[in-house]
Amino acid sequence: MKYSQIFTKTDKNAKQYDSVNATLLIKGGFIDQTMSGVYTFLPLGNRILRKIENIVREEMDKIGVEILMPGLSPKEAWINTGRLEEVDNLFKVSGANELSRRFNSAEYILNPTHEEIVTPLAKKFRRSYKDFPFALYQIQTKYRNEARPKSGLLRGREFIMKDLYSFHTSIEDFREYYEKVKQSYWNIFEKLGIKQDTVLAAASGGTFTTEFSHEFQTKCDNGEDLIFQVPSTKEAFNREVASSKAPEVPQDSEMKKIEYKNEPGVIGVEDLCRVFNIEANQSVKTLIFETDSKEQPVVIVALRGDYDINEIKLMKIISCTKIRLASDEVVKRVTGAKIGYAGIVNLQEGVPVYLDDAIEPLINFECGGNRTDYHILNVNWGRDVEKPKKFYDIKIAKEGDLFCETNEVYDTFKASEVGNIFPLFDKFTKVLKYTFIDKDGSEKPILMGCYGLGITRVLGVLVEKCHDENGIVWPYAVAPFHIQLLHIGDDGYKRAKELERELETNGFEVLWDDRDDISAGEKFVDADLIGCPFRIVVSDRTLSQESVEVKKRNESESSLVALSDLIPFLKV
Amino acid sequence: MKYSQIFTKTDKNAKQYDSVNATLLIKGGFIDQTMSGVYTFLPLGNRILRKIENIVREEMDKIGVEILMPGLSPKEAWINTGRLEEVDNLFKVSGANELSRRFNSAEYILNPTHEEIVTPLAKKFRRSYKDFPFALYQIQTKYRNEARPKSGLLRGREFIMKDLYSFHTSIEDFREYYEKVKQSYWNIFEKLGIKQDTVLAAASGGTFTTEFSHEFQTKCDNGEDLIFQVPSTKEAFNREVASSKAPEVPQDSEMKKIEYKNEPGVIGVEDLCRVFNIEANQSVKTLIFETDSKEQPVVIVALRGDYDINEIKLMKIISCTKIRLASDEVVKRVTGAKIGYAGIVNLQEGVPVYLDDAIEPLINFECGGNRTDYHILNVNWGRDVEKPKKFYDIKIAKEGDLFCETNEVYDTFKASEVGNIFPLFDKFTKVLKYTFIDKDGSEKPILMGCYGLGITRVLGVLVEKCHDENGIVWPYAVAPFHIQLLHIGDDGYKRAKELERELETNGFEVLWDDRDDISAGEKFVDADLIGCPFRIVVSDRTLSQESVEVKKRNESESSLVALSDLIPFLKV
Repeated sequence: MKYSQIFTKTDKNAKQYDSVNATLLIKGGFIDQTMSGVYTFLPLGNRILRKIENIVREEMDKIGVEILMPGLSPKEAWINTGRLEEVDNLFKVSGANELSRRFNSAEYILNPTHEEIVTPLAKKFRRSYKDFPFALYQIQTKYRNEARPKSGLLRGREFIMKDLYSFHTSIEDFREYYEKVKQSYWNIFEKLGIKQDTVLAAASGGTFTTEFSHEFQTKCDNGEDLIFQVPSTKEAFNREVASSKAPEVPQDSEMKKIEYKNEPGVIGVEDLCRVFNIEANQSVKTLIFETDSKEQPVVIVALRGDYDINEIKLMKIISCTKIRLASDEVVKRVTGAKIGYAGIVNLQEGVPVYLDDAIEPLINFECGGNRTDYHILNVNWGRDVEKPKKFYDIKIAKEGDLFCETNEVYDTFKASEVGNIFPLFDKFTKVLKYTFIDKDGSEKPILMGCYGLGITRVLGVLVEKCHDENGIVWPYAVAPFHIQLLHIGDDGYKRAKELERELETNGFEVLWDDRDDISAGEKFVDADLIGCPFRIVVSDRTLSQESVEVKKRNESESSLVALSDLIPFLKV
Repeated sequence: MKYSQIFTKTDKNAKQYDSVNATLLIKGGFIDQTMSGVYTFLPLGNRILRKIENIVREEMDKIGVEILMPGLSPKEAWINTGRLEEVDNLFKVSGANELSRRFNSAEYILNPTHEEIVTPLAKKFRRSYKDFPFALYQIQTKYRNEARPKSGLLRGREFIMKDLYSFHTSIEDFREYYEKVKQSYWNIFEKLGIKQDTVLAAASGGTFTTEFSHEFQTKCDNGEDLIFQVPSTKEAFNREVASSKAPEVPQDSEMKKIEYKNEPGVIGVEDLCRVFNIEANQSVKTLIFETDSKEQPVVIVALRGDYDINEIKLMKIISCTKIRLASDEVVKRVTGAKIGYAGIVNLQEGVPVYLDDAIEPLINFECGGNRTDYHILNVNWGRDVEKPKKFYDIKIAKEGDLFCETNEVYDTFKASEVGNIFPLFDKFTKVLKYTFIDKDGSEKPILMGCYGLGITRVLGVLVEKCHDENGIVWPYAVAPFHIQLLHIGDDGYKRAKELERELETNGFEVLWDDRDDISAGEKFVDADLIGCPFRIVVSDRTLSQESVEVKKRNESESSLVALSDLIPFLKV
C-alpha cells in the first residue's frame, strides 16, 4: 500500500500526552483523540487492532464460541442484578433532544460489561446437565464513565474488549476450564510477543468471594499497577492483595515516659511527625470504619504511620462487603474526640479493634489521645495499652515489604494489565435464578467464570513495552505492515514500484512511502516512528549492486541484501 | 463444527414476529432479541455477519481506507453542525446513577452517523489539493432512537453499518467517484447473490440540494419501500420522489348546478364521500401549510381526495426546507373557517396556491366551503373558480400512476433498502469550515459524499429474500456453514466424524448435527430451517453403496453421491 493512500500523516510536533502510547500513537498517525478517553483508530491503528483481534479470536475459538451482544441493554437487566445503582462507571442512554424524546423517552444502559446480558441468554438455551460446560465470547465495544480517563488507550471511556463467559455444573469443572483459559491467554501473549515479560498475578476476587481473581500483568516502566513477586516461587500479587510484612525498624531499647501533648490542629501523620520530630514509622494511626456487617457495624483499625489501610484485606477479616470511614458523629461517639485524634489508648469497650502487625514491635510510639487536640508520645505495649493476642495484616504493601509466608523481600515492578480472569461462582446465576436440571431431575446451581482481554488496551501496552527514543518497534505479528519501503532517486522509484508488488505477492504487507514532497531523511524518521519490523531502501546506489538496504527496526545496523536473496532473507 | 458446540438450539415454537427475518432468525437460533430493536448475534448469526463484513470490506478496500471511529462523541461536535436539536433519533449518554455522575456529570452523543466526526478528522490531516480525493470507511455500530423499531434487523435501535465518506475538490471528481461507489456496491450485491433483484432508485437528496440521492433497493415481498420503475428505461424511484401523473378518471360531460351543503362535523375525505355519496377522486382536499420561506410563509395546497401530499415535492417547489400543517389560527385567518372546511373557492387574495395536476381534469368536484360546517358540490373550473395557469405534481405516487416524462404506467414493487449513497456536496464542509488550499494558494470549498450499507440490515434482507416455507435458503457466500452434515445409525456416526474432518480439510465449513437426543426427522427439519446450501446424510443405507445423500437447500430432490465423487460434486 502506498503511504499516500493511508490518509494520515505523522505529526512530529504532536504534543506529549500523559503516556508513551498516546504520544507515539498520535504522533505516528495510528489514532486520533476524538475527546478525552475516546479515540478514532486511523488506518495504521485499525490494521493493528484487527491483527490483535484475530490472534485472540484464534485462541478463543478453541475454548468457546463467538457471539456478539449489543451495546444497549434494558435497565431492568441491571435492576435484576442489583447493579443499576452500584456500578460506579455505568452510562445510561436516552433521547438527546425534544424531537428524539417525543416518541421514545425510555432510558437504556450502555453496557460496561455483559454478565447482565449473557446470563439470561445462556438460561434461554442451556438448562440440562447435558448442555454443560459451555463458553461464549465476543469482541465488542464497551463504555465506561471513567472519572478520569488517562494513559491513552489504557483507560478510556470507550474501548474494545474480548469478554468470555463460561458456565459449569461443578467446581471441578470450573477449575479445569479456568486453567484452560490461563493457557489460552499465555498462547495469545506468546503470539503477541509479550509472554516473557508477563506474569500471572493474584488480584481481588471482589466482595462475594475470598478467592483471588487473576490478572495477566506485563512489566512496563509506566505500568499503572505495582506487582509484588515472591523471588523463590515467582508467585505474583497485585498490590491490592499482596500479603505484607513490614521490614524491621530499629527501636529504642528502653521505654520512655509517656507524654500527653496538647497541640490543637495537628492532624495527620505528616503534620505530627514534623511537630513532634518523630518518624512516620514510629507513629500509629487509628481509623474508625463503619461497615455493612451486622455484628461489627463499627470497627477501630490501627496501622503504622507509614502504611495505608488496605480495605480489601480489612473487609475479608471482618467478613463484610462494604466499609467507609466513619462519620464525625460516630468518631466522636467511639473516641470521645473530634476526627484526627483517635488513638488506641483508653478505647471504649465493645468496639472491635484490628491492629496491623507492623505496629507490634514498636517501642515508644505515638498515637492519638482520644481527646480533641491531644496526642500521646512514648506509648508502649503492656504498660500503656494492653497488647492484643492477635495482630492482622491490613496494610497496603509497599516496596521493600516481605512476603508473609516465607519472609522473603518481594521483587516489585510496575506492570500493565493485559488480561484478567475472574471466578464469578454463583454471583450472577444465583440472583438471576439460573439453575440446571441434573440427571436425577433435580435443580442445581450453575457456576460461572468471566475472562476479559482489552483489545485496545493490549495495543496501548504493546507500545508502552515496544518502543525506543525514535518511535514504536512493533512485534511482527501485529505490525501495521511488515515492511516500510523507501526509495531514493528515479531508478529507486521505479524499482520500488515493482518491489512493492513482488513483496506483496510473496505475502508481505508493504507500506511504500511514495511521497514526493518530503526528503529521504524525513522518511527515515517516519519509518522509525511508525516502526514496521523491516525498513527497505532502494536507491541508485543499492541498485548499482543489484541490492537493497534492509534494516530491522529492532537492530541498529542495516545490511545490503541482493535482490535475488531478499525474499528468503525476510522470511527468516 | 459440531452442532452441540454452537450453543443455540432451534426453537420451533418461537412466536411469529412482525417480519420474516425476525421470525426465522430467532426460530433458527441465529439471533436473540435483547429488547425491542436490539439483538444479540448468536454463533450462527455472528458467522454470517462476519462474512457479509468481509465481502463489503473487500470491495471498500479498493476505493477507500478503513478506520474505526468511536460510538461516543462530544456534544460540541453536534452543536457545531447545528444538528444537536435537529436529528430526531439522536441518543445522548450520561452517568446512569449517582455514583457515576458524582465524578463525571458530562453528557455525550451516541453517534447515529459520523459526518460530525469524520469531517473534523479529515480536516486535521488533509488540506492541500495534493491530498485529494480520498475516502474513509468504517464498519461500526450505530445507535438511533427509533420511535418504533420494527421488521427485525431492518429497523433497530442498534445496528452495524459500513459508512464511507469521500472528499473532493471538484464536482467532476465527486461525480466520478460517486459512479465508482455505485459499481462497488453492485459488486457487493453480486457477491451476496441479490444483484439481479436489486435496483438503484432515486431518493430524496435532503433539504439542502435538489439533486437525488440513490438507494439500492432489493425486491422483497415484505419490503418497507414502494419502488416506481419506468418500464422502458428501467429508471427507478423511491415513492418519495417518484414524479406522478394520475391515470384518467371518467368525468361527467356536463356541469351540474353548484350546491352549498351545511353538514356540521363532516370532516375528511372518507366522511364526506359517504355523506355526499361521491368518490374520493371526485373530491378536492385543501391543506394549509406554514413554511420556513420568507416569501411564502403560508401556502394553500390542493390535491385530489385519493392522493396524499408529498412534502418533499412541495418543499422543492416552494424552495423551503421545513413545512408543517398550519395551526388552527392560521387556517382560520386564511380560510375564514375552522380546520376541515378549507376549499379552493373564494380564497383570500395574496396567499400562494399550489394545485396538484390530478385535479385539473375534474368536472363537478367537491371541495370545502371556506366556511365552518360547509362543503360545496359540483364545483367547476372557470365557472366557480378560476383555472390557474399552472398545476403542479405535489402528490405521493400511487400504484397505477404514470411517469410524467413518458406517460408510461410505472412498474411498482415492494423493496428493502440495502444501501444508500448520498451527495452531501458542501453541507458539512461549509459549516465546519473545511476548505483546501489549491495550487495557486487560494482556499476553496470541499465536496463530500457519504455512502451507507447496513451490515445487519443486509442480513435481514437476505432472509426476507431467501427463504421458503421450511426456513432460510442462504446464498453460498454468506451461509453460516456450507454443509449441514447428518448421520443415521452407528456406522453413520463414525463415518460422519471422519467426513467432517475430510470436508473441512477441503475448505468446506461443516455443521455436523451430532445431537443424540433428537430424531433424524427433527434434524432434517432443523437443517431446512437453518438453511445451509448443502445437506449431506450419511447412513448405513448410503454407506452400503459407499455413498452419501446430498441435497441442495434450493432444490427439492436429493441425490446419492459416491464418497469418492463427493468433493468434486460439492465444488461444482
